[in-house]
Amino acid sequence: MDQGKVTRVLKSMEEHDVPQMIVSDPVAIFYLTGKWIFPGERLLALYLNVNGNHKFVINKLFPQEGDLGVDIIYYDDIEDGVEILSKYVEKDKTMGIDKTWPSKFLIRLQELGGGSKFVNGSPIIDYIRMIKDEKEQDLMRKSSKINDVAMEKIIPWVAKGLTEKELNAKMREIYKELGCEDVSFDPITAYGHGAADPHHVTDDSKGKRGDCVILDIGGFKDNYASDMTRTVFIGEVSDRAKEIYDIVVEANRRGIEAAKPGARMCDVDLAARNYIEEKGFGEYFTHRTGHSIGLEDHEFGDVSSVNTDIIQVGQCFSVEPGIYLPDENIGVRIEDLVIITEDGCEVLNDFTKDLIIVPEE
Amino acid sequence: MDQGKVTRVLKSMEEHDVPQMIVSDPVAIFYLTGKWIFPGERLLALYLNVNGNHKFVINKLFPQEGDLGVDIIYYDDIEDGVEILSKYVEKDKTMGIDKTWPSKFLIRLQELGGGSKFVNGSPIIDYIRMIKDEKEQDLMRKSSKINDVAMEKIIPWVAKGLTEKELNAKMREIYKELGCEDVSFDPITAYGHGAADPHHVTDDSKGKRGDCVILDIGGFKDNYASDMTRTVFIGEVSDRAKEIYDIVVEANRRGIEAAKPGARMCDVDLAARNYIEEKGFGEYFTHRTGHSIGLEDHEFGDVSSVNTDIIQVGQCFSVEPGIYLPDENIGVRIEDLVIITEDGCEVLNDFTKDLIIVPEE
Repeated sequence: MDQGKVTRVLKSMEEHDVPQMIVSDPVAIFYLTGKWIFPGERLLALYLNVNGNHKFVINKLFPQEGDLGVDIIYYDDIEDGVEILSKYVEKDKTMGIDKTWPSKFLIRLQELGGGSKFVNGSPIIDYIRMIKDEKEQDLMRKSSKINDVAMEKIIPWVAKGLTEKELNAKMREIYKELGCEDVSFDPITAYGHGAADPHHVTDDSKGKRGDCVILDIGGFKDNYASDMTRTVFIGEVSDRAKEIYDIVVEANRRGIEAAKPGARMCDVDLAARNYIEEKGFGEYFTHRTGHSIGLEDHEFGDVSSVNTDIIQVGQCFSVEPGIYLPDENIGVRIEDLVIITEDGCEVLNDFTKDLIIVPEE
Repeated sequence: MDQGKVTRVLKSMEEHDVPQMIVSDPVAIFYLTGKWIFPGERLLALYLNVNGNHKFVINKLFPQEGDLGVDIIYYDDIEDGVEILSKYVEKDKTMGIDKTWPSKFLIRLQELGGGSKFVNGSPIIDYIRMIKDEKEQDLMRKSSKINDVAMEKIIPWVAKGLTEKELNAKMREIYKELGCEDVSFDPITAYGHGAADPHHVTDDSKGKRGDCVILDIGGFKDNYASDMTRTVFIGEVSDRAKEIYDIVVEANRRGIEAAKPGARMCDVDLAARNYIEEKGFGEYFTHRTGHSIGLEDHEFGDVSSVNTDIIQVGQCFSVEPGIYLPDENIGVRIEDLVIITEDGCEVLNDFTKDLIIVPEE
């Protein structure tokens, strides 16, 4: 286990009066142990106790090599894994439960009296995962550097007559070539009409002269996600689309400017949103300004108007305002990732935000 | 909602003293309502009550068209969906909970006192889903008919020098061409060494003369899954491999013969397993004989040595014995789906089990 991270979790457990906790989400388990285990419908439970008596309950189908720094308790398919787990818990104390733990396990643990009270323990880990340590920050930088290259490589393809689906497949190939484990989410490769609808599903349509093209893309490199959006144009750009483009670039700039320690997450949202509203397009910016990111593309910690949490050094999140005019087939979104520093933030994406017109082939 | 299915569920709820239940699994919800809703991390809860006071709690992001035959209660992202749900439940009665419901929702419902006792309600629906009604049986037949064609189309490709991954991609294309929504699981397209390992992960290796090729494939047609395995040979077959092949075909035949109402699920497993043991290969048949299938490739109801449930008319499951000799690079598996009839079973796959040698190109 990563002692630094575990220590932070145990400290927060004490502060929140959660003396013991079950972690079951494979991503949270990777965060703490450095091991990926995907148990499917089977029980996987990392039991943490502030007294240090941690146990890791794993099905025998997933044998672990090396010392994980925690006692591993193996069970097999004919044993009741929750009953085995229940032998190690303190039955007279509050038990934190992973928000995603399937209810069949919680119900069984409750039948066995495995705690005096059951609470959602996930916020404890989610708030800690929100603050990236030095090593994680380096991995986020490295992942976004690759994303800058991926963006450069995909842009010429938007004007080669590919369908949205073909462009999506090309995007996936590029991440593979660049050494990423996978895309960090299904790439958005949307032309004109599709770009103007933030809920558009990638289809077989092709781009045409004058279309905007939204490229919202990211990959996993060494387990950490990148995520960037640029909007480019095929062949030419209308004055109207250029006007929208410039507004979104400025909203993105203002959001980034507001991203600093001590401000609130909603201040970033408002900085971008207020500018778009000022310009008269408030009703066409139909989503939150961003989301936290790390081992998952979307992590706990929204950049939204209702999140009043104070921004802290080490947070990493996206700033991605957009304007969508479905009746005009215009959609523009510009997204960068930032890491919060002592005096502001560091932008992880270097790819230009100057307007790009891709020549038709 | 499908009144026949809902009536069966309510009857079983009464029999099991579960007067109210929350269904959250999207597949179970589709089974009962005919609607696919994938809520991600958001609450989706079909509340069933034996008194008929059903409610369907859905996030506003997923608006439903038409009459679903159940009151829909919409909530939005700034509301507490579980609290809204809790207003409709009977707080002094037992509550059945979907096995996969994320614990964060169950903990919240318990905080709100949304039941006198919480039990795993999923077996009620799982046992009902195990028995396919006439309409479902027709859909299973139709899906497997397409699978017969898919098998015929893929076999010539095993001797064209494709890698396992390329053969896998070809397989996916074929299902698409045949009008399937998707593959029903990641197709297994394994040559020689890979075929001899039931846990093999599809890789970049190519087949060579004399290799066995395991094709374990299926698609979704109109939401229902197919699943069939055939093992073919490239160019030639050794006497040893032919011996193994004949044993597996006979084990498959014996398993099918044992599949009839009144027998136990384990009898099907034993019929296949005992024959393979008799022939001296018992230790090389390393998995259960089959699994139930329907809206999912793997449904509740194993064909294994420990499942003593009595087989009932309308069940649908696979019979798929195999022998794997890793030291000899030989692996053979033969799989068919069956539907249990009044006096035995109907085999859904017509594709030949005669040994096929595919000429090299």
